[in-house]
Amino acid sequence: MTATAASPDLRELARQARAAARVVARAPAETRRKALEAIAAALRARKAPILDANRTDLVAAEQRGLAPAMIDRLRLDDRRLEAIARAVDDIAAQPELVGRIERAETRADGLELARMRIPLGVIAIVYEARPNVTVDAAALCLKAGNACILRGGSEAFASNQALGAAVAAGLAAAGLPPAAVTMVPSTDRDAIRALLQLEDLVDLCIPRGGEGLIRFVAEHARVPVIKHYKGVCHLYVHAAADLDMALAIAENGKVQRPGVCNAIETILVDRGVAGAFVPRLAARFGALGVEVRGDEDVRRLGGPAIVAATEDDWAAEYLALVVAVRVVDDLDAAIAHIERWGSDHTESIITADPAAADRFLREVGSSTVMHNASTRFADGGELGLGAEIGISTTRLHAYGPMGAEGLTTTKFIVRGTGHVRA
Amino acid sequence: MTATAASPDLRELARQARAAARVVARAPAETRRKALEAIAAALRARKAPILDANRTDLVAAEQRGLAPAMIDRLRLDDRRLEAIARAVDDIAAQPELVGRIERAETRADGLELARMRIPLGVIAIVYEARPNVTVDAAALCLKAGNACILRGGSEAFASNQALGAAVAAGLAAAGLPPAAVTMVPSTDRDAIRALLQLEDLVDLCIPRGGEGLIRFVAEHARVPVIKHYKGVCHLYVHAAADLDMALAIAENGKVQRPGVCNAIETILVDRGVAGAFVPRLAARFGALGVEVRGDEDVRRLGGPAIVAATEDDWAAEYLALVVAVRVVDDLDAAIAHIERWGSDHTESIITADPAAADRFLREVGSSTVMHNASTRFADGGELGLGAEIGISTTRLHAYGPMGAEGLTTTKFIVRGTGHVRA
Repeated sequence: MTATAASPDLRELARQARAAARVVARAPAETRRKALEAIAAALRARKAPILDANRTDLVAAEQRGLAPAMIDRLRLDDRRLEAIARAVDDIAAQPELVGRIERAETRADGLELARMRIPLGVIAIVYEARPNVTVDAAALCLKAGNACILRGGSEAFASNQALGAAVAAGLAAAGLPPAAVTMVPSTDRDAIRALLQLEDLVDLCIPRGGEGLIRFVAEHARVPVIKHYKGVCHLYVHAAADLDMALAIAENGKVQRPGVCNAIETILVDRGVAGAFVPRLAARFGALGVEVRGDEDVRRLGGPAIVAATEDDWAAEYLALVVAVRVVDDLDAAIAHIERWGSDHTESIITADPAAADRFLREVGSSTVMHNASTRFADGGELGLGAEIGISTTRLHAYGPMGAEGLTTTKFIVRGTGHVRA
Repeated sequence: MTATAASPDLRELARQARAAARVVARAPAETRRKALEAIAAALRARKAPILDANRTDLVAAEQRGLAPAMIDRLRLDDRRLEAIARAVDDIAAQPELVGRIERAETRADGLELARMRIPLGVIAIVYEARPNVTVDAAALCLKAGNACILRGGSEAFASNQALGAAVAAGLAAAGLPPAAVTMVPSTDRDAIRALLQLEDLVDLCIPRGGEGLIRFVAEHARVPVIKHYKGVCHLYVHAAADLDMALAIAENGKVQRPGVCNAIETILVDRGVAGAFVPRLAARFGALGVEVRGDEDVRRLGGPAIVAATEDDWAAEYLALVVAVRVVDDLDAAIAHIERWGSDHTESIITADPAAADRFLREVGSSTVMHNASTRFADGGELGLGAEIGISTTRLHAYGPMGAEGLTTTKFIVRGTGHVRA
């Protein structure tokens, strides 16, 4: 773990990270696995100082009057710290990626072709209050053979330093260079801006956080960026929907964990079932304490508790017990609404009509599309990737939940016996 | 084919391209195949006006005193035009990509997971003198279900307009919107700069051309860029090399087609075989008219015809009958030289030692690495991709030769029977 004074030379940090990336890329799988296991062990051994540091951040956050949701993201406790350590163990146990041979074939003339999976190099991750990102990102980058440069939010500065010390201990235990996980020792935006200019040293930047941060990164980046943008997720209750199923999935998507990006923000109800479904939805969500904001049709069918929706509601990522509901004429109107207002995250159709489901799955361009399932499954762990670095809403390279494999690329391998081109 | 006045509204062109991209993405494979076949037919039917337009460009190029290599790239004739049309036929015959289901699996709870291959959207391609890029790029983008915005060089303006008219005729024959292949009707750099700002409308920019163009695009782009940068390709003649094989591959890589990016630019000779190999190389290349620029060792071993190499030679992409030759101490020194001076394109080791070959293939990070084979095989057609849009030296998304599949991405498809998350 490299740390310098308050005004760091980002180019020098990045140069050290690049040198470390070569070492990590060439290290045997066994060395990287050992480092990950040592990181998990260090997190458990250093529980007291980590939680102490976290309390420092929490006190400062309360004094500064941070929003309760932000404070909740910042908070660590025994259970959360153990979950972070266990995630590192899980990443260590995932199959090895670096050097994996794919698509091997032999041409008629005997020339052997294949692709080899290789690390991307140096990955910069810029994030906000969640201290778990420090460990998740370091572990996933290491698994994929990369070095990383981490720049967390000022709210979590003490927590990140303490977690970073555990990561550094793990790297040292496996003999890997400290710069393999470099923490930027400054929390001002100038440091991000400087980092984003280093196109000769940084292969990828992943911003994770609110809209403001992501726009800032997109605006200033000379290095490639994969955006992990907001989730304005839609549930479309089709005319041929099983309404009990639709209600259960609406509840799961909105209520089970409203503060996450794969929660439902808008429900589109087909006009064919609106009369039957909207009153039931209004009653259920009323009982659950969910505020419903509806268009004219929804307000007429759902009763006086429904708030009038404005255009802003179609674009809103509430991350709270609020939902926008709109009646749409048909499948085409539902797809058009999602195209206009969606954020390329996750959308689900509830229908018993396979042709409608197929059209929805094919024509909706979001990174995860579902049929008769809760949007809450849009998650690397649930979709078989293991831990995730986030959910990409950029189409290039990785689209949707992004795990360790998303932090690699492939090169072409050609083996001949003196082959020349005619 | 959309064309407006000299000062085009790039945002409006891109908006039309985006609308067309939706139509192309949803069009049946059959429609896109029909369009490609109609484009190939239109190229053949319009041979006379295309070659007339090309002659206009050639006359202007000669008057402006363009370099012979540039004029050669610009030139079309019966044979080259037929090759362009045949490439479109080949692309039409490639397996369909859009909607392809990959990595399907079913979880223990019955939730079905898969990925579906989908187009990227709108792809901007910025290129220079080669008019064939107009047709290759349009055909590959169409195959992958994308719309494209093409901005060719001023030298090929008339040729590109004529080729574009053939593309437009093919789109019309299949009922696809003309904006699916949009030609920017301006050749000044302001038009490129404006295009590169449209991050809400353009999903990817691929610059193809000289270093100046690529730097310009990288500097001004807000949209994602995949660079197709220069090829400073290396041949490393290892201590355990078969020297006859090494000589044959050196000749093939340097002489067969010196003006292309996968030609050899630097030969690294292991000290263990330098005494035996350098004199033979110098004699052979002398007879072939190849200028050799060598370090001290090479000059001592190769005779007086060898020019003294400077540092600039290690970085040079000659694209001509010139080669830099250097003696290196061992495999590590060869890898270090390539790391320092290479351009992430293609490198080949000649050796009978499998352990040395494995280390080279694993540790050299270039997009194509070879053993006992000519660098000239680094080509989409040769490596089984079919036609290529170019050779990416960007690690993100596509690294190395990039075909139609490189112009797609995947989304996650989830099918349940009412699944909710616990």
